[in-house]
Amino acid sequence: MAATSLYQSSYPPQLTPEQQEYLATTVHEWTITNGLVVRLRSANGAAEDSETSHAGTIPITLFPSRFPADCFLEALEIQTAYNRLYAAVASDEEWLGRVVQELAPIDSFIAKLWEIHETVKAEGYVQDLSFGLFRSDYMVHYPETQERPTIKQVEINVNSAAFGGLAPQVTSLHRYLNSVNAYPESASSTIRAGSLPPNPSTERIVAGLAATHAAYGPSPSNHPLCIVLIVQDIERNVFDQKHLELSLFSETKANVFRLPFTQVLQHTRLDTERRLLYSPPAFPDRIYEVSTVYFRAGQSPDEYNEVTWEARTHLERSRAIKCPSVLLHLAGFKKVQQILATPDSPHLARFLAAERECERVRATFAPMYPMDMSLDGLKGREMATNPEIAKRFVLKPQREAGGNNIYRGAIPAFLQNVPESQWPGYVLMEMIEPPAQRNAILRDGELQSGGVICELGVWGTVLWRRTDQGIEVLKNDEAGYLLRTKSDQSEEGGVAAGFGSLDSVCLVDV
Amino acid sequence: MAATSLYQSSYPPQLTPEQQEYLATTVHEWTITNGLVVRLRSANGAAEDSETSHAGTIPITLFPSRFPADCFLEALEIQTAYNRLYAAVASDEEWLGRVVQELAPIDSFIAKLWEIHETVKAEGYVQDLSFGLFRSDYMVHYPETQERPTIKQVEINVNSAAFGGLAPQVTSLHRYLNSVNAYPESASSTIRAGSLPPNPSTERIVAGLAATHAAYGPSPSNHPLCIVLIVQDIERNVFDQKHLELSLFSETKANVFRLPFTQVLQHTRLDTERRLLYSPPAFPDRIYEVSTVYFRAGQSPDEYNEVTWEARTHLERSRAIKCPSVLLHLAGFKKVQQILATPDSPHLARFLAAERECERVRATFAPMYPMDMSLDGLKGREMATNPEIAKRFVLKPQREAGGNNIYRGAIPAFLQNVPESQWPGYVLMEMIEPPAQRNAILRDGELQSGGVICELGVWGTVLWRRTDQGIEVLKNDEAGYLLRTKSDQSEEGGVAAGFGSLDSVCLVDV
Repeated sequence: MAATSLYQSSYPPQLTPEQQEYLATTVHEWTITNGLVVRLRSANGAAEDSETSHAGTIPITLFPSRFPADCFLEALEIQTAYNRLYAAVASDEEWLGRVVQELAPIDSFIAKLWEIHETVKAEGYVQDLSFGLFRSDYMVHYPETQERPTIKQVEINVNSAAFGGLAPQVTSLHRYLNSVNAYPESASSTIRAGSLPPNPSTERIVAGLAATHAAYGPSPSNHPLCIVLIVQDIERNVFDQKHLELSLFSETKANVFRLPFTQVLQHTRLDTERRLLYSPPAFPDRIYEVSTVYFRAGQSPDEYNEVTWEARTHLERSRAIKCPSVLLHLAGFKKVQQILATPDSPHLARFLAAERECERVRATFAPMYPMDMSLDGLKGREMATNPEIAKRFVLKPQREAGGNNIYRGAIPAFLQNVPESQWPGYVLMEMIEPPAQRNAILRDGELQSGGVICELGVWGTVLWRRTDQGIEVLKNDEAGYLLRTKSDQSEEGGVAAGFGSLDSVCLVDV
Repeated sequence: MAATSLYQSSYPPQLTPEQQEYLATTVHEWTITNGLVVRLRSANGAAEDSETSHAGTIPITLFPSRFPADCFLEALEIQTAYNRLYAAVASDEEWLGRVVQELAPIDSFIAKLWEIHETVKAEGYVQDLSFGLFRSDYMVHYPETQERPTIKQVEINVNSAAFGGLAPQVTSLHRYLNSVNAYPESASSTIRAGSLPPNPSTERIVAGLAATHAAYGPSPSNHPLCIVLIVQDIERNVFDQKHLELSLFSETKANVFRLPFTQVLQHTRLDTERRLLYSPPAFPDRIYEVSTVYFRAGQSPDEYNEVTWEARTHLERSRAIKCPSVLLHLAGFKKVQQILATPDSPHLARFLAAERECERVRATFAPMYPMDMSLDGLKGREMATNPEIAKRFVLKPQREAGGNNIYRGAIPAFLQNVPESQWPGYVLMEMIEPPAQRNAILRDGELQSGGVICELGVWGTVLWRRTDQGIEVLKNDEAGYLLRTKSDQSEEGGVAAGFGSLDSVCLVDV
């Protein structure tokens, strides 16, 4: 079966103008009623001035996108292996240290994070628990040469990954539209009972955070325990976070505070036992002890200055359980993904003992190459600078999140303007070839119909303890999914960045 | 105990600027996450251009307002009596006809509604079930001359009363703020366990509509049954309706369609059995049979023209159960309230058999007088035109909803400009003297603190059958409450009209 056949169907159905209007109106009303929204941009497009009392429908697809059922289930099933893998990488200081040593000379951000680890280590860590909240992102790979579609990992996010609080509602919306017959009849041949699986991302992410909070244990300090979200000063995607916060409060009955990264030092302090104590600005006389620090900021170098570096160090020194710790943050850099995914790499087996599990995880890797002076790196450099070969690749810096990648034919010219000494800061990855399909994206009240590409994210939560013998995993769960869909005219897919939209899967057999 | 003592307390507590900001931010985020919102006005203030993909926090109080527990419970408890009362009035065609005869010559709206009734009656009604969804609005009356506070009815709404879909969430919000300690400690002496009673308005209103839908019974037509909301072309308060719609769909699994009043004739027709058949504009080939017509439009004369009068007649002729029927709509006019509430009126006993029930209902009436040439009317005219006496009164036209009342000292001058022949279209009501208290209202991102006045609405649902012997009540329930709070600087309280705000009760013993 060739790639093209999967999506050459009558799905989604063509809409009359009346149907378009009805669906758009229904989606607007449903999403706002259910908080499936994003803060508005201000008139000049900046998030900075946006009105906090207003919001609007998040960019979203009218229809759930067809997704091969096998691929979806495989992505869910291997998530607990990914969880263990990255918990293990983050706890293997020796191995991770070697990776960092290669990058530190050319990447001051990585160097500085490692420095925090060394500082805290010298003093002695007072918390041996870590919590990982991961989102492993995939695309369906279905080139014409391949008989069946497979999933290939785009990247794994270990830090601040968004939309776990909104994703379940996209499924609820699409189910609702189907159940009220808002779609033309022909959609029913694709959307059938069971083809829109439930998405438990909010409840499972919350269950992971709640387990972390509980594992912190009671404190002799007598201060009430709380959970702190480290947030950006301005956050358009605040309602995604808010759904998680409200659910987490319901689950734990512990206060969940939003603390801007830039204000950590003003409102927290460490006691003599390095407990992290927080006093809310509105109630400076109250003191809470922080069990869990959940970063929804601090991922990107441009968020750091002298104050926030000190804040990061301060949090890392504390007894609070971090999501992520500095070591886990380092484990999330592309370089680690590349080392694991380079063809014939022996490293995966170091972290995943079970051979079958290794194979399944490895099967999700797209080939990746370093850009350093190793043998693999020389191969990578050769391919990246060859205009013909480069067309099959994407060049990625160490940063997570969209907006920084260089695609295909643009790679050789881009590298000409980067000093060769900086090349090891990039990794080269074979492009994944997703099957095209159509959908209609509703964004800012406008409907755009056309070819789209879907990216599946699978959430994982893992709570583990570092021991002298390695790691002891206390809780390890797959935690639902995210589907983001973008126009096939765009290479980037970030919803917040304005390119993508939220979607849900409609499972199909291929 | 004098009136002033009830609210001369430290509640709500004074807020620091940091506490104000924290509370406002938390309220904005919580309300938008939970759909406690209203469609925005356009930049020029008109609802007409408002962006359907956007919304904002509905005007709302930061704190629940103190409300005497006795008064609250009394208002809830007598609602089922009010339900029966208005069901009986609407079914007593002879009595209602006499009232209408008095008003028809000076009120063409009332005359026209009655004409619809007569037209349909001549043809023969094909539906003997009626559904009433009422909201009886009260204020606490607590003049210095009175030892204890009592409740007095402001008006009863039988048509399109709003906010039943949002009210429960105001309680949820205030409970949330209290449970996360967002209020200063001193609030805890007022807000205690049990002082914020749950508000089941959404679920009970939906239960009433669902029972009505079920009572319609299966149809031999083989078309799927649906429920239709008759709506205005532009509706800022659409999310209130949407919460009801979504819940009603969950409950009944029947489609709930929004149909603009102006488009009723385009998209519905009657079959030979006068079943009301609806075809959605997006799917003109589909045919649904309408079990229940729930009016959220058509209350006010300015919504009527040739087309909508015909639509109202068309709906009244149909077999669908109307909420409200034309007769019930007529029963909701102020004149009926006035007749029942005029001191020493014998009419109440005609409709409520139980003496104790009569007494309790009568105790909620503020004295009202007609403005016609009857003995009571002459008394009313005398008081209304006397500048000193008029100060204790409000002059109301037959219309429900705010914006049309004339207050106190303004009454005599107003009447000078109204031909005496029109005076019978008004009723004169003694002003209720509510105890003042303070609160902070968040509206469009601005916080206004100061004296406020609260109005309690109690929802009631009643499903009944007209029989030759009178009425058979099939379901009769009190259905939660609404608290609206306005600045004591304003005489009008409509939230949608921009004067009031949503609130919840914090019960106190007086």
